[in-house]
Formats: sequence, structure tokens, C-alpha cells
Amino acid sequence: MAKANLFYAQSGGVTSVINASACGVIETARKHRDKIGKVYAGLNGIVGALNENLIDTNKESARTIAALRSTPAGAFGSCRYKLKSYEENQREYERLMEVFRAHNIRYFLYNGGGDSQDTAHKVSQLSHKTDFPITCIGIPKTVDNDLPITDNCPGFGSVAKYVGVSIREAGLDVASMCESSTKIFVMEVMGRHAGWIAGAAGLATEQEGDAPHIILFPEIVFNKEKFLKKVQTCVRKYGYCAIVVSEGAQNADGSFLADTGDKDAFGHVQLGGVAPFVANMIKDALGYKYHWAVADYLQRSARHIASATDVEQAYAVGQAAVEFALAGKDAVMPAIVRKPTKKYSWKIGEARLADVANVEKMMPRSYISRDGFHITDAAREYFAPLITGEDYPLYKSGLPQYARLKRVLEQKKLKKWRAS
Amino acid sequence: MAKANLFYAQSGGVTSVINASACGVIETARKHRDKIGKVYAGLNGIVGALNENLIDTNKESARTIAALRSTPAGAFGSCRYKLKSYEENQREYERLMEVFRAHNIRYFLYNGGGDSQDTAHKVSQLSHKTDFPITCIGIPKTVDNDLPITDNCPGFGSVAKYVGVSIREAGLDVASMCESSTKIFVMEVMGRHAGWIAGAAGLATEQEGDAPHIILFPEIVFNKEKFLKKVQTCVRKYGYCAIVVSEGAQNADGSFLADTGDKDAFGHVQLGGVAPFVANMIKDALGYKYHWAVADYLQRSARHIASATDVEQAYAVGQAAVEFALAGKDAVMPAIVRKPTKKYSWKIGEARLADVANVEKMMPRSYISRDGFHITDAAREYFAPLITGEDYPLYKSGLPQYARLKRVLEQKKLKKWRAS
Repeated sequence: MAKANLFYAQSGGVTSVINASACGVIETARKHRDKIGKVYAGLNGIVGALNENLIDTNKESARTIAALRSTPAGAFGSCRYKLKSYEENQREYERLMEVFRAHNIRYFLYNGGGDSQDTAHKVSQLSHKTDFPITCIGIPKTVDNDLPITDNCPGFGSVAKYVGVSIREAGLDVASMCESSTKIFVMEVMGRHAGWIAGAAGLATEQEGDAPHIILFPEIVFNKEKFLKKVQTCVRKYGYCAIVVSEGAQNADGSFLADTGDKDAFGHVQLGGVAPFVANMIKDALGYKYHWAVADYLQRSARHIASATDVEQAYAVGQAAVEFALAGKDAVMPAIVRKPTKKYSWKIGEARLADVANVEKMMPRSYISRDGFHITDAAREYFAPLITGEDYPLYKSGLPQYARLKRVLEQKKLKKWRAS
Repeated sequence: MAKANLFYAQSGGVTSVINASACGVIETARKHRDKIGKVYAGLNGIVGALNENLIDTNKESARTIAALRSTPAGAFGSCRYKLKSYEENQREYERLMEVFRAHNIRYFLYNGGGDSQDTAHKVSQLSHKTDFPITCIGIPKTVDNDLPITDNCPGFGSVAKYVGVSIREAGLDVASMCESSTKIFVMEVMGRHAGWIAGAAGLATEQEGDAPHIILFPEIVFNKEKFLKKVQTCVRKYGYCAIVVSEGAQNADGSFLADTGDKDAFGHVQLGGVAPFVANMIKDALGYKYHWAVADYLQRSARHIASATDVEQAYAVGQAAVEFALAGKDAVMPAIVRKPTKKYSWKIGEARLADVANVEKMMPRSYISRDGFHITDAAREYFAPLITGEDYPLYKSGLPQYARLKRVLEQKKLKKWRAS
């Protein structure tokens, strides 16, 4: 019988280090050519498996694979596609197993967030009821940092670093101009459900008066009066006020802050995000001149300012996933374990997919200051090591050089798949 | 008689390298202690001179001054304050000269854009009609790259690098997701009057299909139909479309693109910038899912990704300004001269303030492709060297460490100034 092949797929919103995990998977698999045949990567994630679009990574040079370590986004394509439950769509799971069987894929490594861990878990369970059992290993990834068990999620540390660096720099800009011009700066960051990213921006405040002066978390119900008072206090005290607002910031009724129901000329609900909304609110109440920024994808693709710790961990979980598979483990996910040392250190642990799937880890209230507008020392202790170290990509003519893959597809063996 | 003192001020919107010019000024002046007494910096620019708020830079350590080279924004404070014409406000000019005389300031170095060069020019002219002539030297600075004579403006190269890096990274993100999710990404960049910054983002396109696919310049009248057709072509061809739009993009009647006259619940004119406007326009016409980013101050304060060429040039013009002053020059500005070599090289030249003041250098039409949506090879040749090289700041605990100044003010000698 031919050596078993491995299938790897990227899932959900990409990060600046998910390709480092791919690099860890492929480089490690290549060291075990005696046990692992081909490494296939799904073209656009799990959809690539359903459609039998399998990228043959063996066709990529060692140099290209190594370059993945410093390439942002999903080099094989990702997708927003959640498999339905087995009861709802049995055909999908059967198709996956049909494709895996046709290409002798015995290892399924799925790189994503909570939903993906759930999918990997289900595929494992189902396959073990057949005569073609598949080893399923999850690989953690998400800028949202909301997976349980693992101390943190690869992808988060780099966004955290980006927002910390950005608000520090923009804060200095506003500080320069505030005497006669802009007094308010509002930066919107990702995090629809939890304030992990917004909180990490708080690391930029090292001394009294440093930006950001205010952080608006999804966890803390927005109180307009209290907020405006705080803004005014900051302007009086420091000359300006730099604010980080999570896209998930909420009103008491659970609605998003910027969801005003306003419509533009085309009948669309409001054009802007929460940053311009908050900036306008301040202008309206206090009259201060403002600027605002929405980093959006820039923050999660900013490989140029990735955290070295994050890159190492992203690579390590990819590597560990292959090692777990070869060690006969199944339905598990490598987790990052923070060691109880004074100086930050970590190791790879193991989480059962059953325990990871569909569980969201929220930021503890103890990470947010009593007034709800900044982070505590406990938060700093947690966040700080995750953004430590720089891991710059290579540059040519002033721009970072990122991997360009050939993405050669394996020949199809099955009939075309039609989603039901 | 005491040695003559020097007054340096930062003016207008700050950049990520204007402090490198300050560093060049102060370090060079310190090498000539036989000729230059104290170096004063205006607290918040020229307003600091009017209010006699003179920062004594001699009170800052050599280490702090050296750190200015890698510190973004205006360390002494800048201002949006344009002196009126002499005819309109004679008192202001007289006050300036009164302050300079009171503090034995014989050298006035003004670091800014076109307006500032005009001010420096006027102060020079006026002072030479008195018995207290002041040597006035301009130092170029502007992210807008719109000063004449100088080949480029310190501050521009770093913004150019930032936007090039950012659209490359975000483009890869969208490319990963476009199969099942976001197909449109719009990034708004600065440049209200000229498309220099937007154009520089075009460097990120190295191969067919690379982001950005479309650039919207202030120089090219926006044609909605043609634009939407191009967007659709890109999505069909590449799977997605990444767009860079200048905040100055205009309609045929000269109005800004995003100026819809829409008002929100508070009665404000539109919340968003041009990026969400363009994104919504596409959604409305073609139905594609979009994301958008507005980098705003992040782009001009992004010292973490500054161009090494830009940093060197910013330092060099500061250094040259002091050397010019000591060489007896007056009413001039160090300019960057591109040498006619195959490999990019530059030297410091000299421009008369009379020729620089209030002249805006526009981007040549030959830098924009025939269809108006991208840049030409001529533009690439001009832009590429300006973003070359990385000059990373020092990091501690994952964040860049920027200079913290003491900003000790010199004792006042005059009555309080009241602006008329």
C-alpha cells in the first residue's frame, strides 16, 4: 500500500502567521517521508477538499515553503464555510471522506478557530465508524484569541503588536498637533465578541499620559456620559485624547455602538465604522477636532511587524500537529502552555478537540480597569510576552518579499461535487 | 558679545521622520559650539516663538537627541498656524523679531512645507531691514511631497513605504478570502491635492494581478461607470479587487468624491471617509462583499516601517541647514538632488526660499497610466528609491522605544504675547 497522504487546510479569517503554521506542517512532514507521502493543501480551505481541489505542496520548492514562515494571509486560500452538523448535511461529511479515501489521505490537519476544531472533531468521529479511519488534528489560529485551553492563539500576538505600535505612533502624532489642531484620535480595532485586541493596545501606555487614554471594550456597556467626561478630563490633563475602540463595543441593549440605523443616499445602513461614530459623538458634545482610523485587514495581515513569539508559536503548532499525528494521537490540538516561570516561557501541550470545539474564551473582567477604560497589571502580564520580539520579513526594493506559490492541483479522481 | 543662538521649529502636519531632521540640526549645531550658543526649539512650532516658549535643547542628553532620529511625530510640538502677510499682521513679525532679539537668536531654522518656507523667507527679508539681521533657513518636510525644486520631500518616502507594504499585505489577505467571502478591499490614503501617496502604493504591484488593482487619484476625474467596469473586470480576472483611493479623489465638478451631503442622526455631514463611500458604491452596483480601511495618522506616524532613504535624507537636510547657516547662506532651503546615475544616488543642493514659497509641485500626468487607474514605469522609477531600505527603531518588550524629552523652557524675558 502507498504511504498515507496528509491533507492540510486553512480556515476562516486569515492572520499574518497562519502560513508559518503551514510551513511547520510541511517542513515537518518532509522530514518524515518514510511515513507521510504527499502533503496536500486545500485550495481555499475545506472547500478545496469538497471540490477535490488539492494543491500538491510537493511541487513547491523547499525555499518557497521556508518563505511561508514570513508570508501573511492564507497562501493556499481560506474560506468562510462551516460544515453543517452531520444530521443536517451527511452528504458533506461523506464527500470529504470519499475524497480522502480516493487520495489515500489518512491525516487531516485543520488550521482554524473554534468552528474548524469542531469540524475536525466530527470528521474524526465519523471516520472511525468506517474502515478508513482518519487521524484528525486541529491547529489553532485566530486573531480573536478566543480558543479555550491554549494560553493564546497564534495570530493574536501579531495583531496585538500591530495595534500597540500603531496607537503609540499615532498618539505621538496627535500629541504634536493638539495645541492648535487635532485633539481627538480614535482607532478602531477588530474583536466583535471580545476585547482581547483592544486590550492589547493598552500595552502602549507605559507612563501616565501615554496613548491610548481610553479603551472601549465589548465587555463593558458603553456609558456615553461617563465616556465623554473621561475624554474631557484627558484633553484637559494631557492636551489630547487617544482612544482605541473595539468594533464590538456595545450599548446596554446589546446593539453595536455604531449601529445607528442611519441610512445613506443609497439606502445603506451607515457608511462608517464605530471609529467615525465615536469621533463624531465627541465633536458633537465637546467640539474637539478629531481624526480617526480603521485598520481593518491591515492589522491582521501586518506581517511586517509580526511578533517573533507569535511566529515561533505558529510554526510550533504546525510542527506539533504532524508529530502528534505520527505519534498516533487523534482528535487533539496542540495548545500553547505558559510555564509558571518568572521569565515568560512556553511549551506545546495537548487539548482534546471535544473540549475546544465551539467554546469561546472571553477576556476576564480582571483584565479591565475598574473604571472600564483601560487594562490592569494582570492584563499586561498576560499580553506583554505575546508581542515580544520582531521577526522581519526580507525586503527587496523597499517592499517585503512574500512567497509566491505555484499551487499545482492534483489530478481529480472523482465526479464533480455539487453542494446541496 | 554672547554667541548667537539658534531657533528651530516644526510646522504643520508631522511625519515619521521630521524628528530625524531635528536630530540633524541639533547634533550638527552641537559640533559647532564655538559659533552656535544654545539651540532653542519652539514649543508647538512658531507659536512657541510668539509665546516665548523656547525649549532649551541643551538640557537634553546626547542620547535623547540621538533617539530623535528614530522617533516619529513632532517631539517639540508642531502647529497649524500660518503667519498672515506682513501687511495684514505686522505685529506678529515684529513679535518674532523681538523674541529673537531678546534671546540673541540669529539663526532661524523652520522645518515645514510651502507655507513655512514662505514664513522663513519673510522673516529673513524683514530682519535685514533692521539692525538685527537673522539668518533664515528652511528645512523641507511634508508627506504630501509637493515642494518644488527638491526631488522629493522628507516624510514622503516613509508614507510611501507604509502604503505600499500595507496594500501588499491586505491584498494577500483578500486574495485568501475572496473565493467565499470578501472580494473588495478599499484603502484610503492621504493626499488632498495630489496623488503622490496614492501613486506610491502602486509599487506593490510587481506582477500582473498583484494588489493594488486600481488607484483613484485626485488628478483623474472620477468616472463611476468606467470605475465599476474595471472593478468587475478585476474580480472576474483575479477573484478580487484591491483599491487604493486618495482622500482627494474628485468628481468632475471638483467636489470630493465622498462629499455626498448626507447627514447622520446628529446632523453631521457623513461619518465616513472616501473608502467606505467607494466600498458602498461597489456593493450597491455589483453586490460584492467588501472591507475598507482608513489609515489616517497611522500612515504618517509609522516610524516602525520608515524608509531608510527617507530617514537619511531627513537627517541630511537638518544637518545641511545648520551648515548653510554657518556658511553665511540665507533665505535658502537644502534640497534633495537626484544624481543622474543609473543606481539611485542623491546629494544635498540648495533652493532659494523665494522660489519654494507657496509653490505646489503636482504629480506629472506621465506618472499615471493611460486608463487613469495605475502608475507608469516612469512613476516606478521615481518612487522606488524613495522607499528603499529599512531603518527599524529599537524595541523593548515588543514595542518601539521612542525619545521622551524633558522640554525645559528657557526663562521668559518679555511681556506676555496677545495675538491680535
